[in-house]
Formats: sequence, C-alpha cells, structure tokens
Amino acid sequence: MELLKRKILDEGEVYEGNILKVDNFLNHRIDVPFLREIGKEFHRLYNNCGVNKILTIEASGIAIGSMVAQEFDCPLVFAKKNKTKNIAGDVYVTPVESFTHGTTYSVMVAKRFLREGDKVLIVDDFLAIGNALRGLISLVNESGAELVGCGAVIEKSFQHGGDKLRAQGIRVESLAMVESMDHKTGKIVFRN
Amino acid sequence: MELLKRKILDEGEVYEGNILKVDNFLNHRIDVPFLREIGKEFHRLYNNCGVNKILTIEASGIAIGSMVAQEFDCPLVFAKKNKTKNIAGDVYVTPVESFTHGTTYSVMVAKRFLREGDKVLIVDDFLAIGNALRGLISLVNESGAELVGCGAVIEKSFQHGGDKLRAQGIRVESLAMVESMDHKTGKIVFRN
Repeated sequence: MELLKRKILDEGEVYEGNILKVDNFLNHRIDVPFLREIGKEFHRLYNNCGVNKILTIEASGIAIGSMVAQEFDCPLVFAKKNKTKNIAGDVYVTPVESFTHGTTYSVMVAKRFLREGDKVLIVDDFLAIGNALRGLISLVNESGAELVGCGAVIEKSFQHGGDKLRAQGIRVESLAMVESMDHKTGKIVFRN
Repeated sequence: MELLKRKILDEGEVYEGNILKVDNFLNHRIDVPFLREIGKEFHRLYNNCGVNKILTIEASGIAIGSMVAQEFDCPLVFAKKNKTKNIAGDVYVTPVESFTHGTTYSVMVAKRFLREGDKVLIVDDFLAIGNALRGLISLVNESGAELVGCGAVIEKSFQHGGDKLRAQGIRVESLAMVESMDHKTGKIVFRN
C-alpha cells in the first residue's frame, strides 16, 4: 500500500532494538481518516472470503480492527491481556511473549464471542516475530472457528514471523513489509 | 439515546459491586455498526464546537473514540496506562484510581499529541466516579489545549462523577444514564 509506505517514510522513527515508532498515526495518535483507507484495503484483500468476525488484541489493534470491521459490516472482538474483574471465567486463554515489553502475558477471549461457524480475520498493527498473531490463532483454533487469514498493517519481515506463518499454510497479508531498517541512519527499506 | 437504552436492557448484565457488563457490544465484542451510531450521536451533540481532536483512554475507549473521530474527521489520541518502551520521555502523566480493578495506574499522553490550539472532546465507555475522565481532563489542562467537553456512552449517575464534573462547569454528555441497578433482580432504571 503506497500511501502507507509513504507515511512510514515520512513519519516513522527507527530506534535501537528493532523498534519502528509510528505513534504519530497508528498507535497513540490515530489518523482515523487514514485508518479508514487501511480498513478498505483489508476488505479488498479478504472480500468474498465470508469473513463475519474481526479479531484483534488490545490496545493498538482496536482502532485498526474497528475500521476493518466497519468495512465488513461485522463485529470486532478484541482479546484482552491479563484477567480483569469484568471477564467471567468462561474464556479461551493462551500465553504470549511480548517483543516490545520483554514479558509474557495472558491473552483471552470470552468463549461466547468465538464460536464454531465464525469465519475470522485477525488484524493487528505490527507483525514481527509473530507471537501475538500465533496467540490469537491458537484462540481461534481452540474455539472451533475458521481462520480466514491474518492482516498486519506493518510487517517487519526481517524478523520472519510472517514467513513462518505462511509456511504453515496460513494466509497473511501485510500492507507494508519492512525488509530492513537502521536506527543509526533512520533508513527504512521495504520488501517488494 | 433510545437505541442504546434498549441494547443495555436487552444485553447488559448487572453484577455485584455496581458492575454493568456490556461486553457483548461495547467493550469486548464490539458491535461496530452500532458504534457508528454512537459516533454520530456525539457528533450531533458537539457539532459546531470546533472539535479537532478526540481524546480517550485505552483499551475500551479506543473503538468508541475511533468512531467519534471518524464523524469529526479528526485524529484520535488515546492515553496509555503505564509506561512502555514505545513512549519517549516527553509525556503528560497523571495518576488514576481504577474503580474496576481497585488499583492506581499512570495515564499518559505524549506532549506532541496535545497542544495549545487543540479543541478536545474526551470520550469513554463508562462514567462512574469519574476518575478516568478527571485524569484525562487534567492532561488536557496541563497541555494548554481547550477542553470542549466530555462524552460517556454510559453514565452510572448514582455514582455522581458526572454531576460533580458538571458542577465544575464542564460540559458532560452521556448517551444513557443509569439511575439505579440491582444485581439481584437485574433491574436497570434510567434517569430521564
């Protein structure tokens, strides 16, 4: 998606530790009109696949998921991290290791919100090692719902999470694939 | 908003400890087409106020904020809880006590995303004691931006947070005001 690549080049910042900061439009300040274009692009890619539920993970997947769900005219379910008072016991849960935070946390979805018969598209802001996506995929599989595919706004393809999922036969679409980036020069190179 | 009241009566569940669970449409499974109506209603209420930024707090405010920002055709900023690697040091921060979780956490917004000249509408899913809103208001005040007002999808008016803010001269609009609820009978009464 050319508009996205342009935005990453214009507004993204590269930090040590393979961190690409795009909080000017994707995950702190949200450029909602732009995110609408993201939603339309995922709809274009997964149209005619029977998607009837979008699944993402809090917090930075929610705005993206909302815009994607809007295009599909279907509900969004966001998986929660850790257990809160407001989730009853009947949940699917899986551990996920966080690349960003260097910790492991639990990810859960109430069982009544993921069901056999659902055709699920998983979306998230970033795909790097793929831990969050693998966690969400495992929740979908446990529920008996059908996984249609995954969509990441930005894939850091040099961390190989996306290619590993594709090698397992899972459809993964990323709107921009960062092949390399350098925090010393700020240079970002995309995969074609 | 009659459609919202109907949904609360049909799908809401009342639990001990003043908990109204609406995770079937508002904060776990998100009824995105319905949330679009929520966005339109806040736009109707705050139209012609010059709003150019929507502010909310992760996680359950984000989907609502996205739909409101879409109507105003402006960016959404979501305040983050706790400090993560991905936020640089230059932040406004304030402590907030959580009614739901019984803990205190830090809420922060990067300084570059809230500025003098901004006209800010704060939105969130719930307004109870008002701690989260007060925290967000304090971030807006610290930044020098102008607070246009606040919008809550559901106000638990028997917890008086909304009325206290109104008594301070802050405009607070709630789309449904729960005057009382009873976890034994499940009965929910709205304020007219």
